[in-house]
Amino acid sequence: MTDPNPSRARLLSRLSLNQETLRQWSLPELADGCARAGLRAVGLWRAPVHAYGASAAARLLRDAGLTVSTLCRGGFFTAEDPAERAAALADNRAAIEEAATLGTDTLVLVSGGLPPGSRDLPGARERVADALAALAPYAAAHGVRLALEPLHPMYAADRCVVSTLAQALDLAERLPAAQVGVVVDTYHLWWDDTLAAQLARASGGAAGAVADQERRPAPPSRVAAFQLADWITPLPEGVLLGRGQLGDGSVDLRWFRERVDATGYEGPIEVEIFNPSLWSRNGTEVLTEIITRFTHHVT
Amino acid sequence: MTDPNPSRARLLSRLSLNQETLRQWSLPELADGCARAGLRAVGLWRAPVHAYGASAAARLLRDAGLTVSTLCRGGFFTAEDPAERAAALADNRAAIEEAATLGTDTLVLVSGGLPPGSRDLPGARERVADALAALAPYAAAHGVRLALEPLHPMYAADRCVVSTLAQALDLAERLPAAQVGVVVDTYHLWWDDTLAAQLARASGGAAGAVADQERRPAPPSRVAAFQLADWITPLPEGVLLGRGQLGDGSVDLRWFRERVDATGYEGPIEVEIFNPSLWSRNGTEVLTEIITRFTHHVT
Repeated sequence: MTDPNPSRARLLSRLSLNQETLRQWSLPELADGCARAGLRAVGLWRAPVHAYGASAAARLLRDAGLTVSTLCRGGFFTAEDPAERAAALADNRAAIEEAATLGTDTLVLVSGGLPPGSRDLPGARERVADALAALAPYAAAHGVRLALEPLHPMYAADRCVVSTLAQALDLAERLPAAQVGVVVDTYHLWWDDTLAAQLARASGGAAGAVADQERRPAPPSRVAAFQLADWITPLPEGVLLGRGQLGDGSVDLRWFRERVDATGYEGPIEVEIFNPSLWSRNGTEVLTEIITRFTHHVT
Repeated sequence: MTDPNPSRARLLSRLSLNQETLRQWSLPELADGCARAGLRAVGLWRAPVHAYGASAAARLLRDAGLTVSTLCRGGFFTAEDPAERAAALADNRAAIEEAATLGTDTLVLVSGGLPPGSRDLPGARERVADALAALAPYAAAHGVRLALEPLHPMYAADRCVVSTLAQALDLAERLPAAQVGVVVDTYHLWWDDTLAAQLARASGGAAGAVADQERRPAPPSRVAAFQLADWITPLPEGVLLGRGQLGDGSVDLRWFRERVDATGYEGPIEVEIFNPSLWSRNGTEVLTEIITRFTHHVT
């Protein structure tokens, strides 16, 4: 059973920093800065991992006493062209292998938007389902769980046709819970009045949360990753880099954390804020601020 | 019964131009330009109507052979402060009176965002319900139906806490269908995979579509207004002025129109595009383009 009132220290031990939050840091700076701050985990992105080398990055973080909470990201499954589609699947298999090399069990998937000129959202969503089915066994064989992320509806056209937690669960539940889960990111989901009901659905007792073919036990929750950012306005051009520091915006972060915990999720709580105003500051200072904000607004 | 395959001419006769689509036009230019283009209706905004005078505007449009499809907008119901709340209700009663003066039966309502510093979306949504209940009889007494508009979730914090058609219907159905309906705006709702089900719910036979206390017959549909714009990316800073010309984006406009018609809605189909690239062009040229696009993508 999940403790309904975990201690502050216990919650702080789950804090992870997604590296794009402090893009100004190199991987060695990230490893050093997070270790000094007492963190136990970081979330990584493929491009900087490629630049450093996946094996070298794995060693660097292990030596710093850090684990990898998530690898961001696979996905982009919506192409209609067979060659593009095959390339996307091949790239996702590579991402699964990289996740395994890094020792993380969670690969975040951003589904992709509408193909150019298309207006067929249901068709694109069905291609996401097909890709999940194609990749899930390969991921499971590598000890990696696919973490399907619903993105805010403002990204439905150009980035992710999966816009709500309900949709993500609809897709994930077609496959064993040990193989496919969902990402709960406060920035994308906070506005949705069906959220409490959908998070209840994601809990361990829910339909679909069954053991997989290898008879591994079902994970306690369909939630595979939990990410935090606040919602602030006005949104910047392109709406990608306008996420808010914890506590600066409209999201009731503690409400989210309590309900995600109630699903049975006991994994890392990753802070993922894309905002140039954080990138222009001293990284250690920003990380200290994040820990303070996390303590105040999340624990 | 609604004709499932209305003729192109019949659909074109329902085309209305929301005046903010051609902000470069004065009210007399709007009346003249729309009449010359063969339109029968326009949608108006309160600020330009105030500047011209509501009675004078009503006369101007009547003389041009035009009716007013909607008045935009009332709403902004989410303040917690009693004085702000009273002021909002008073302003909405004035908007109802203006709608009556203009001869339109439809006042569009944008609910308002979160009060400064608040994270309580459910509370804000309940205050919207309270305001609707307070205003609906006053509107009905003036022959005006309140048209609650769900806005895209990207506006939930700062503009409208009602983000989906399901939420808007939840609120509207607490009151007689003759008094409160919903606005279906393609720009705000296109991404939602529950849309077909919610539009079916909005049809005349649905729960709540009952005659009101004055025993007037229930309107055929909970849909009180239908507005068109396309979804294009990238979104501009502030995400207000990035709507697309019909056919330029991701929205299947004909799909929408067919399903809105199937609810029993037979009213105006209003084009409401906020985009500086349309405002910088010759208004007659833009209106001609809109009619062409409407014919191609909507009828």
